[in-house]
Amino acid sequence: MRTVYHAELARLTEHLGEMCGLAGVAMEHATEALLQADLVLAEQVFSCHDKTAAMSAAAEENAFVLLAPLQAPVANDLRAIVSALQMIVDIDRMAALALHVAEIARWRHPRHALPEEVKGYFAEMGRIAVKLGNSAQEVLLTRDPRKAARIRREDDAMDDLHRHLFTVMMDREWKHGVAAAVDVTLLGRYYERFADHAVQVAHRVIFQMTERFSDGASAPT
Amino acid sequence: MRTVYHAELARLTEHLGEMCGLAGVAMEHATEALLQADLVLAEQVFSCHDKTAAMSAAAEENAFVLLAPLQAPVANDLRAIVSALQMIVDIDRMAALALHVAEIARWRHPRHALPEEVKGYFAEMGRIAVKLGNSAQEVLLTRDPRKAARIRREDDAMDDLHRHLFTVMMDREWKHGVAAAVDVTLLGRYYERFADHAVQVAHRVIFQMTERFSDGASAPT
Repeated sequence: MRTVYHAELARLTEHLGEMCGLAGVAMEHATEALLQADLVLAEQVFSCHDKTAAMSAAAEENAFVLLAPLQAPVANDLRAIVSALQMIVDIDRMAALALHVAEIARWRHPRHALPEEVKGYFAEMGRIAVKLGNSAQEVLLTRDPRKAARIRREDDAMDDLHRHLFTVMMDREWKHGVAAAVDVTLLGRYYERFADHAVQVAHRVIFQMTERFSDGASAPT
Repeated sequence: MRTVYHAELARLTEHLGEMCGLAGVAMEHATEALLQADLVLAEQVFSCHDKTAAMSAAAEENAFVLLAPLQAPVANDLRAIVSALQMIVDIDRMAALALHVAEIARWRHPRHALPEEVKGYFAEMGRIAVKLGNSAQEVLLTRDPRKAARIRREDDAMDDLHRHLFTVMMDREWKHGVAAAVDVTLLGRYYERFADHAVQVAHRVIFQMTERFSDGASAPT
């Protein structure tokens, strides 16, 4: 009975990890759409989002089933499921932020939303977003605090790029007008928030581990 | 036993409602700090946030206790608690967005972050934010779909103001430079997201009611 239960819980965790990975891929495609002003790729981000939304609903339902008293979850299991439910909200936001990036690429098409001058920043932010999606997946699967620390470093790198982006808009002679500055500001915010949510997923995994150990209970089998 | 349980559940809901109201008040104060470039008020938003954070942690813990199999929650109770856990994440974001507004007021002090030209928009967005906090509280307490519909109207009004704000920055002759445009863009986004989260809280209350009825079960006593 407990073995089956924990296998289900492990499957839920894998499912969440897969969603993190997909959010990273969505951000990768959205970034490419943005950098290339590629409408087909932008549309693809939208159509793939349906799959992510369905996965999210399924994950929530699975979590719900595992909460049922008939399944007799113990305190540690409950913490894991509560944590999973909160992570679903975070991962949904990651996927939604990739959509927002694709949206701006679509609105501006056939023009490029980004001035040449800042494209390098976004290419790099896109690369970090993929890493963050993958790292969040790894943290979920391994519960390794070192991998969680790596996410924090990736988030720091994202924050640095974000800050530099503002410097480019403010301190140098910005020749691209207010409209481009507004787009760049919003886009920068989307990437920054994407990173924050990945950090939050890692934080929930590690916090839940700590809570588990502070309860004096053993790790799940 | 069930009566005590449902009284606890009702207390949790009240607690969440109170948190929504406080998020609205925080946004009101943050807006005032922004409009008046009032550092004392901005700092007050920060110090009040500790209280909100403590309430949020307490709400999560209470929800967790209500999930325990010993309490024998039935499916409807579980849905209500899962929904409460997700709402806590939304309400935390509302409070965090008020902090972000206060942060910009603090960074720019003693200067005004907002050009005179857009202050009216933000005064109105601040008023709507307070209404949204109060409406979300009412939806939680009454579960009245009409009140949820009111939140949607308030959100539409927020979206309209948000769109107009962009028109002001883009279409007219914007004389306040890129730095002010970046601030206005971020601030606009914070108010818009605040409204989205309030809508989400209402949506979760109503969705959970629908699920409850579609389960063929009666409303809780």
